[in-house]
Amino acid sequence: MTRASQRLLAGDKRALSQVISLLERHDPATSQVLKEIDPHTGGAYTVGITGPPGAGKSTIVDRLTELLRQQGLTVGILGVDPSSPFTGGALLGDRIRMQRHYLDSGVFIRSVATRGQSGGLPRIIKGMVRLLDAAGTDLVLVETVGVGQSELGIMGVADTVVVTLMPESGDAIQTLKAGIMEIADLYVVNKADRDGSEQMATTIRAMLQMAPTQPDWTPPVVLTQARSGDGISELWDKVEEHRQYITTSSELATRRSQRRKQEFLETVEEEVGRRLRAMMHSNPDFVATLELVANKNAEPYSSAMQLVESSYGSADWPGSLTGTVT
Amino acid sequence: MTRASQRLLAGDKRALSQVISLLERHDPATSQVLKEIDPHTGGAYTVGITGPPGAGKSTIVDRLTELLRQQGLTVGILGVDPSSPFTGGALLGDRIRMQRHYLDSGVFIRSVATRGQSGGLPRIIKGMVRLLDAAGTDLVLVETVGVGQSELGIMGVADTVVVTLMPESGDAIQTLKAGIMEIADLYVVNKADRDGSEQMATTIRAMLQMAPTQPDWTPPVVLTQARSGDGISELWDKVEEHRQYITTSSELATRRSQRRKQEFLETVEEEVGRRLRAMMHSNPDFVATLELVANKNAEPYSSAMQLVESSYGSADWPGSLTGTVT
Repeated sequence: MTRASQRLLAGDKRALSQVISLLERHDPATSQVLKEIDPHTGGAYTVGITGPPGAGKSTIVDRLTELLRQQGLTVGILGVDPSSPFTGGALLGDRIRMQRHYLDSGVFIRSVATRGQSGGLPRIIKGMVRLLDAAGTDLVLVETVGVGQSELGIMGVADTVVVTLMPESGDAIQTLKAGIMEIADLYVVNKADRDGSEQMATTIRAMLQMAPTQPDWTPPVVLTQARSGDGISELWDKVEEHRQYITTSSELATRRSQRRKQEFLETVEEEVGRRLRAMMHSNPDFVATLELVANKNAEPYSSAMQLVESSYGSADWPGSLTGTVT
Repeated sequence: MTRASQRLLAGDKRALSQVISLLERHDPATSQVLKEIDPHTGGAYTVGITGPPGAGKSTIVDRLTELLRQQGLTVGILGVDPSSPFTGGALLGDRIRMQRHYLDSGVFIRSVATRGQSGGLPRIIKGMVRLLDAAGTDLVLVETVGVGQSELGIMGVADTVVVTLMPESGDAIQTLKAGIMEIADLYVVNKADRDGSEQMATTIRAMLQMAPTQPDWTPPVVLTQARSGDGISELWDKVEEHRQYITTSSELATRRSQRRKQEFLETVEEEVGRRLRAMMHSNPDFVATLELVANKNAEPYSSAMQLVESSYGSADWPGSLTGTVT
């Protein structure tokens, strides 16, 4: 076993931080570490917190961290920040509140930029969760910004998905139509002191009753005022209830296996894309092809299909290679 | 030239609709049509309309369509709807307003589901825009839902990007931090009769002044009340102004070539993913590999890397193949 894996399994936060950086840089060394630590994962529980900008997700994460630390649990926080040349990543204000946890050795905080990826959740976050898990983290909180298709990615990593809304999110139906209802295991209406919060909760409950999203689980709707801490412990109770439910039913095991398959497929897909992009600068033939496409001497879609067809040949690809995975 | 391409170039809306359906189903016949019509594209101008749910994008599209039809221009509307088992796609209400255009032969309307893709904008929408273009459409309006990373995809298809906000979107800074400022060529503050709209416009203008996002273009901020039609003609004037600007500078040509390259790369990447997913059901070796990954007998990331490595060999891949693109 590599030294990095050993240190990581011993809970060394510096090693953890270093391997995460390697993963972010697509360093080939990461494969070995992920492989070595994989059998030692599965102990951590992952909670995804998503919702529209301004709903108070960071404050909720801050309050949950406080609560979990009081219970003696170790916490990992992964904040996914859409990269922005304008804001230079997350707005500082959002994370300032977290600072009190930075000095706590039982808390590991990491911001992950999406780097212009089209999906909302960087695929490598799944590897990061496993690294945190192997390092002995009890609870991993993954916070993602925005509502919409991008948020569906949270399902790829979280055992329990908490959708955070606030009364001002516009009307509940509009907010929830963007595919978000299917992913929510739990709703939070934050800023519950404001007008319309009770009504929003009622509307969500009514929508869930009209069209249940999960066979044996009705997502609870919790009202919170994260800034003052109100409702946070109730929120956590509901997370625990959901954890209990998916652990007892075989749902958790199913979700986790599904996710591993998904990650494998996505990693292949993205790695192919990454290599293609690298070739844009390094491979003269490929650069020439791209120029043909750019200058309307070749059509993008059909050229791409032709390239894939000739690279992968028959529908069997990569049949002969799959046996090599060890 | 295929019969489908001929009919399409003659402006046959039925043929257009059929080819778009083929493209959605990844039918191999599409490549040939896209290739044949490609030289006949470039005449259409594409406007992307994006923003948070409830900001009134559909109403704006409806009003713009009305205006453009009064000017005798043909209009294509592509509405991107996050697929949702719960709502069955777009909420009906959003599109009901559009019905009056359905019977107008100068308007082509199509809803495109994202089918759970992680990115916000389905990649095939780019092919669709070219098909509409080849069929003689003057203006293509692409409407996408949500704010966040998913919306960055709109840059991949639109010549002018209109970001639509409303006073209730939460405060402007929060709404705009998710990478949206870099993509906006133009802002609309809709529902301008509501409180806070003037202030929102002022804040956006101030943010743009503090940190310009484009060297020679300051995105205008237009106030509208789409429901009554107020401000729509001013909005269109600003779109025309932007069109003038990017056409006169070489910006439009640059954007369009960039987009073609991007589409080529994305298509390769997605097609590889699509073939992998198909193999999950058809290729026994591959199914076995996935089971190893699912059952923790193989680690997802390293297994994926290994597969890519052995499939693509050296960094030169697919060097020898790139010459075959015709």
